[in-house]
Amino acid sequence: MTAVLLAIGDEIVGGLTIDTNSAFLAERLRTIGVEPVGTLAAPDDEAAILRALERGLEDAAIVISTGGLGPTADDLTTACVAKLAGQELRLDESSLAKIEERFRARGREMTPNRKAAEAMPKNPAEAMPKNPAEAMPKNPAEAMPKNNRKQALFPEGSVIVPNPTGTAPGFICEVERGGRTRHVICLPGVPREMQRMLDETVLPWLEARSPQQRFSSRVFSTFGLAESKLDELLEGVVAPGEARLAFRAAFPRVQARLTVSGRAGDDLEERLDELEQRVRQRLGTHLYAVGDQGMEETVVGLLRQRGITMAVAESCTGGLIGHRITDVPGSSACFILDVVTYANEAKRNVLGVRVETLSEHGAVSTQTAEEMATGVRRLSGADLGVATTGIAGPGGATPGKPVGTVCIALAWEGGVWSRRYQLGARGRDWLKSWTAQLALDRVRRWVIEDHDEPDPPE
Amino acid sequence: MTAVLLAIGDEIVGGLTIDTNSAFLAERLRTIGVEPVGTLAAPDDEAAILRALERGLEDAAIVISTGGLGPTADDLTTACVAKLAGQELRLDESSLAKIEERFRARGREMTPNRKAAEAMPKNPAEAMPKNPAEAMPKNPAEAMPKNNRKQALFPEGSVIVPNPTGTAPGFICEVERGGRTRHVICLPGVPREMQRMLDETVLPWLEARSPQQRFSSRVFSTFGLAESKLDELLEGVVAPGEARLAFRAAFPRVQARLTVSGRAGDDLEERLDELEQRVRQRLGTHLYAVGDQGMEETVVGLLRQRGITMAVAESCTGGLIGHRITDVPGSSACFILDVVTYANEAKRNVLGVRVETLSEHGAVSTQTAEEMATGVRRLSGADLGVATTGIAGPGGATPGKPVGTVCIALAWEGGVWSRRYQLGARGRDWLKSWTAQLALDRVRRWVIEDHDEPDPPE
Repeated sequence: MTAVLLAIGDEIVGGLTIDTNSAFLAERLRTIGVEPVGTLAAPDDEAAILRALERGLEDAAIVISTGGLGPTADDLTTACVAKLAGQELRLDESSLAKIEERFRARGREMTPNRKAAEAMPKNPAEAMPKNPAEAMPKNPAEAMPKNNRKQALFPEGSVIVPNPTGTAPGFICEVERGGRTRHVICLPGVPREMQRMLDETVLPWLEARSPQQRFSSRVFSTFGLAESKLDELLEGVVAPGEARLAFRAAFPRVQARLTVSGRAGDDLEERLDELEQRVRQRLGTHLYAVGDQGMEETVVGLLRQRGITMAVAESCTGGLIGHRITDVPGSSACFILDVVTYANEAKRNVLGVRVETLSEHGAVSTQTAEEMATGVRRLSGADLGVATTGIAGPGGATPGKPVGTVCIALAWEGGVWSRRYQLGARGRDWLKSWTAQLALDRVRRWVIEDHDEPDPPE
Repeated sequence: MTAVLLAIGDEIVGGLTIDTNSAFLAERLRTIGVEPVGTLAAPDDEAAILRALERGLEDAAIVISTGGLGPTADDLTTACVAKLAGQELRLDESSLAKIEERFRARGREMTPNRKAAEAMPKNPAEAMPKNPAEAMPKNPAEAMPKNNRKQALFPEGSVIVPNPTGTAPGFICEVERGGRTRHVICLPGVPREMQRMLDETVLPWLEARSPQQRFSSRVFSTFGLAESKLDELLEGVVAPGEARLAFRAAFPRVQARLTVSGRAGDDLEERLDELEQRVRQRLGTHLYAVGDQGMEETVVGLLRQRGITMAVAESCTGGLIGHRITDVPGSSACFILDVVTYANEAKRNVLGVRVETLSEHGAVSTQTAEEMATGVRRLSGADLGVATTGIAGPGGATPGKPVGTVCIALAWEGGVWSRRYQLGARGRDWLKSWTAQLALDRVRRWVIEDHDEPDPPE
């Protein structure tokens, strides 16, 4: 079964919004054996939407559209699909009731927030007065605007796709083209709503129609390998026809994905388990995770598993390491403290970096990094101290230390390690991301007692 | 003049890579009066690419493709365009020379990185040995692979678009369709390379061909207004035909964009200046920036302008505030210290939060937030201390403090302010982002002595 993905909206075609829905849909469809064969985007214009739908149905058995299901006049998807299918629009009372209920509930839900919104004093030096809380939302009834009724209209005979987290339901509409039955599936453009509707209703509906072929994928995440190097390492790891192997650079990591297919009832996971063993052997410690996870998840997992606590002292990464670590639920069990010392004074006063170290070697030096790591470890009582210092640019370069000079250090009971890297002037964001990833990778390798260096960035 | 954007590649259609190029192209094209009318994506398949090119040329005067210009067998764009245009492929010696030069230079550039890659000791407890540096890259000659020669082939008569940062040049090829001259412009898929080639060669080429109409836009960034509220506030701010007004939710900010058009020689900036005054009046302090910038840029700008220094104590935001602040070049002038105290012990030991405060009111309380703000201010000597503490979830909720409870505090010479917010359980990432934005907005409003609260999130 093939599919074309169609994003609808002026904001997509005009470049104000990046279409992330089509990629999400494509990935999910492939897991159930539906092959995406193309992507289209059309503006909020009837002729353009109709043309895109027609083209989609020329190329594939299914067109899945996102967007254009809102309540306003420029939301045209439903009307276009009805026209294409030659069906009237019919009001679905059950959907209408849900939309109305949603508006009522929102009115109520907003109350506590409004209550909490006491006014801040006009003069910041004043003590905070306890203003009486606003007891009611600004629109107490929060009645449903009339035009939301439009969202309960569907082409006659459609399968309705409920939207548990928003107002716009979707629908699946049958269309005859060239003597064949094809389908248009319409979902809202809000990613969170669309994703849940896809998983809960659309994928099961599609699976029920194509019970033959099944697909399953596994992702392997690496850091410090160029895509071409990863390709080389995995050459011949699967025999032709055994699985499909694809590569993806998802900065700063590089991933490989294996996809196997079979009939319903085949144990695809078992086949992936076997292939995973071969991949693991080839990649060794370059592989930091099986799955699409960040290095921070692996690090938190390892630290928790071994009962190791960590503290971080950041200069050039500016809080990014802490931010990434604290994105992982449960990180509080191993992450004690992060000190971002952008100023030299703070490096001295808070972390105890010595004046002589800073004056002799500079803030960006392995010596300073080591004293930062040791200092934050002492301050926090953590088992492991990690430090970064570097020149993110655009300013700050000195003779012998160009933009992109970075030092990383680790300190633990009885030992310290540090290294200086030249990562090049590739922009502030790039340098922060790469340095944070590198530091997390050093923590990972320290824990597993593997000390290979990743390749320098390409 | 109209354009269709075409992204080429299996990774796009298959959903492994999100196409960001089309949105970038669309935005840029609109600034010179070229109207994007649709977007297509095609896999690495000759028939599919040819079909997409034909469709694009049906809809618009220009098709701009990205991707498929690489050296390997599945890079088909150039061959497809030549076929479409009925032209032979011809080798461009000057492009070939540049590609070869690039490979030679890369061989040389890699040496210092490899030199720096001393091995880490196998046992982390060992002192770091000074291993001799690898003096040479692994492939010393780094000769150009044969298949890169393909990247110097172009359809006869094309205008070549140089690529200053990568190997694949692009080209502009004339195609006759329905008695009209149309153009296919092919650029590589790597965003950084594509963007520079667009700005340096393609846009000037397009401008030279359509000297009539010019467009100019201005973006207004707000925080704490729902999109519908912003719409309401700006209703009627421009007369019909005077400018185009569009809205965009770019979480956690909401933006309005005004676009004016005129003929070459018209002073569009002057007209935008005048409109900006009206927008400013309507939005007041909800407007935090004119332009597409983050709140952190505004905050760093204000602090530097007024000579105020800041220190941050983060709990639930986990380093995100520091990360955002340090994304701004020059932030080191006002940003002294950030302490991420995830553990209560660290709150006590590093920031001096009192044991009784933690036991009586809990870590997530306005009292703890105030002591964190005061503590980090004292520790750093900064003018302003800012603190966040909250329950990001999924765990950590206690009776009366559900997931999404957040406290923010500011401390300055002679004053302290704090507030508790109920932001709801919308996921960890969401809560960190919103809380960081809210804290930065409180700093902004403190500096400009405006103390309105933003609306609660929708």
